[in-house]
Amino acid sequence: MLPAFSKWPREKKIQWILKDLPQANHIKKKIQECLHPQEHIQKNMEGLSENVLTNFILPYSVAPHFLINQKIYHVPLVTEESSVVAALAKAAKFWYTRGGFRTSVLSTQKEGQIHFRWYGDIQKLYDHWQWIKIKMLEATQSITEDMKKRGGGIQTIQLKEKKNIASFYYQIHVTFDTCDAMGANFINTCLEAMAKACQIYVTAQWPCIAFEIIMSILSNHAPHCMVISRVSCAIKDLGYIHGIAPPIFAEKFALATHIAHHDIYRAATHNKGILNGIDALALATGNDCRAIETAVHVYAAAEGCYQGLTKVSLEEDVFTVQLKLPLMIGVVGGMTRLHPLVETSLRLLQKPNAIDLMQIMAAVGLASHFSALTALITTGIQQGHMRMHLHNLLSCYKLTLAQREKAMVYFQNQVVSTQAVKDYIRKNVS
Amino acid sequence: MLPAFSKWPREKKIQWILKDLPQANHIKKKIQECLHPQEHIQKNMEGLSENVLTNFILPYSVAPHFLINQKIYHVPLVTEESSVVAALAKAAKFWYTRGGFRTSVLSTQKEGQIHFRWYGDIQKLYDHWQWIKIKMLEATQSITEDMKKRGGGIQTIQLKEKKNIASFYYQIHVTFDTCDAMGANFINTCLEAMAKACQIYVTAQWPCIAFEIIMSILSNHAPHCMVISRVSCAIKDLGYIHGIAPPIFAEKFALATHIAHHDIYRAATHNKGILNGIDALALATGNDCRAIETAVHVYAAAEGCYQGLTKVSLEEDVFTVQLKLPLMIGVVGGMTRLHPLVETSLRLLQKPNAIDLMQIMAAVGLASHFSALTALITTGIQQGHMRMHLHNLLSCYKLTLAQREKAMVYFQNQVVSTQAVKDYIRKNVS
Repeated sequence: MLPAFSKWPREKKIQWILKDLPQANHIKKKIQECLHPQEHIQKNMEGLSENVLTNFILPYSVAPHFLINQKIYHVPLVTEESSVVAALAKAAKFWYTRGGFRTSVLSTQKEGQIHFRWYGDIQKLYDHWQWIKIKMLEATQSITEDMKKRGGGIQTIQLKEKKNIASFYYQIHVTFDTCDAMGANFINTCLEAMAKACQIYVTAQWPCIAFEIIMSILSNHAPHCMVISRVSCAIKDLGYIHGIAPPIFAEKFALATHIAHHDIYRAATHNKGILNGIDALALATGNDCRAIETAVHVYAAAEGCYQGLTKVSLEEDVFTVQLKLPLMIGVVGGMTRLHPLVETSLRLLQKPNAIDLMQIMAAVGLASHFSALTALITTGIQQGHMRMHLHNLLSCYKLTLAQREKAMVYFQNQVVSTQAVKDYIRKNVS
Repeated sequence: MLPAFSKWPREKKIQWILKDLPQANHIKKKIQECLHPQEHIQKNMEGLSENVLTNFILPYSVAPHFLINQKIYHVPLVTEESSVVAALAKAAKFWYTRGGFRTSVLSTQKEGQIHFRWYGDIQKLYDHWQWIKIKMLEATQSITEDMKKRGGGIQTIQLKEKKNIASFYYQIHVTFDTCDAMGANFINTCLEAMAKACQIYVTAQWPCIAFEIIMSILSNHAPHCMVISRVSCAIKDLGYIHGIAPPIFAEKFALATHIAHHDIYRAATHNKGILNGIDALALATGNDCRAIETAVHVYAAAEGCYQGLTKVSLEEDVFTVQLKLPLMIGVVGGMTRLHPLVETSLRLLQKPNAIDLMQIMAAVGLASHFSALTALITTGIQQGHMRMHLHNLLSCYKLTLAQREKAMVYFQNQVVSTQAVKDYIRKNVS
């Protein structure tokens, strides 16, 4: 084992990790190539995590001209999937001339839980609940001071009986408004202080009855932190999409959405198509993609069976697609001030607050979904996707610029697949 | 609107995006600072996506000394969350002396669907099913040729009645073995070719009966692509963990896991703790985190209510934690060959095949979960997390090295919070 590996200087760590590997020098070169040339930026990156060897780069893109609530945004995106940015740019363009995206925030409440066991009569806790709450709030005073100034803080504190889950088990369910922060650290710090205060009160009051905190932590299930985005136009104004007449396209889009509502295999991929866009914007703005994915998927499962998150209406000859989902995100805290590009992303978006960003993100999710489903029900997903991926496939061969261009021209009218590219190269490039 | 924005050179795109923004020069500088100094690496990154302005960097870290099936791995990780790498390194160290992680792959089947409507008697399709299948397989011959050589390809093709979802609606459910590739492109290309072949056969056979393909696409629900990881030791060998005696720790860990099995608010965050580690390794190895997140969360919801994915057993005085989850990942295709560090990650892991990587990833998921839950039920999550985050909080102030060191020393025995750091700076740094 390695004593204090995390304290070693970067170069020593790299040396040690590579010591028994074949081609260690080659790997070392690759690692060093990705260090940032500016020492202070590199230092910042190393501060973000532990045992940092170098930087991992992903393409930072932009989807221009998103019309959201009558305002134009150029949306920064970080994704490795070649077709996501193209899909977003396409959807933005399509809806730009059809009223754009309409969004609204329904709620911004975040939630956390203190899980505990108490071996006494629960009525005792209910009788003292007002006092316990006061003690818990007092314990968070210094933590919440700043958040309160900004209009946020702890909203409600509720005692819940959960004996159906385990004997003597209860929860304190707390709701929060964390303003422009995602709020995970704030919530967890509050909950831990509250748990301690509760424990002190209860054990002082009933020293002979066991009271035990199990854990105190925010929940990534966020069904009260919801946003809606919507696109809508007269069915006839959809125009012909890849040769498909507007009413037929609209009906097929609605059917595909209906299927995702009832079939778990399809629902999974339907929702992934929404998250492809959302995660790209979340990364660019320094938000936690795991938290976002969790909240969205858990919400999709919250009614008892996992469902697609969009709805389509065709009433009165108007085509409307609506996406409703939880988004627990922030524009301050976390990486915001430390990362060299997160602040840039927020500037590109004209310095949104958390409520603005929730809406932009919901629009982006709907856009990425709209393009994906449109491709699926018309040309098939592979035509566009593989055309984007063609560049990657060709990059695996050492081609001259002329050879590459010739290949690009050839595949304009051909099905692109890994195999097809391989065959083409074998036949045409010696 | 912008004609052919995606074709513009990078500098023109940047200029245009920034034209109406305040401090455009400052933003431009930030964007340019993140370009890779080596032109060919930058070109490669730009090929990965569309409308690329620059690169987004994330720290590339390593968690050393993971003992998995008696073999040692140094695990590459890409994450912005400061505590994830520390948590993984800690769990690796803890289990290293207690037998390490045991993993096994249960299945590697991937699935896709052709959704269609057929207005005739379904018996007709059943009667011709053998012929239709042959036509569909013929249509994929050139696509699957290479995959077959590697031992993979199409496994089963099944016709499913789905009239309960919509009138005249059916599915062709196809299963695949995609060997070392994640396989999304392969599966989608196969399905689209199969759908076309099916349509040609059916419309030739029954030209007067409408047959309509709705869509053809892989599913990100992957309940037959499963891996298990497990840690286990005698309860007494757990030792005192943050002052908590082994049997008490074990019982509390089991209780917390039981709660995550029955409470959706807790289940969400329980599973997020698993994915924090998994996504970090997935990013480092060029895998699609949205696909992984989708499969894991949908599987957690597949039994009708969303549940935690781990199980704990305390039988015969042995503490065992087991994680069972789907992982649809690959070690070839996608970004593997194009990204400057993905290949490096695979080399650090001693060139795993997809089955090896599934297991390493499942061990990493279990490790990140174990550290998170251990912190939660002992010291609380914030002690370790905020200590990691202290660096970030201090970086928001312009401190000299001496001031920073003094602050670090001060907070060794203090609760770290955004507010506490702010107060400290106000009082101690003029």
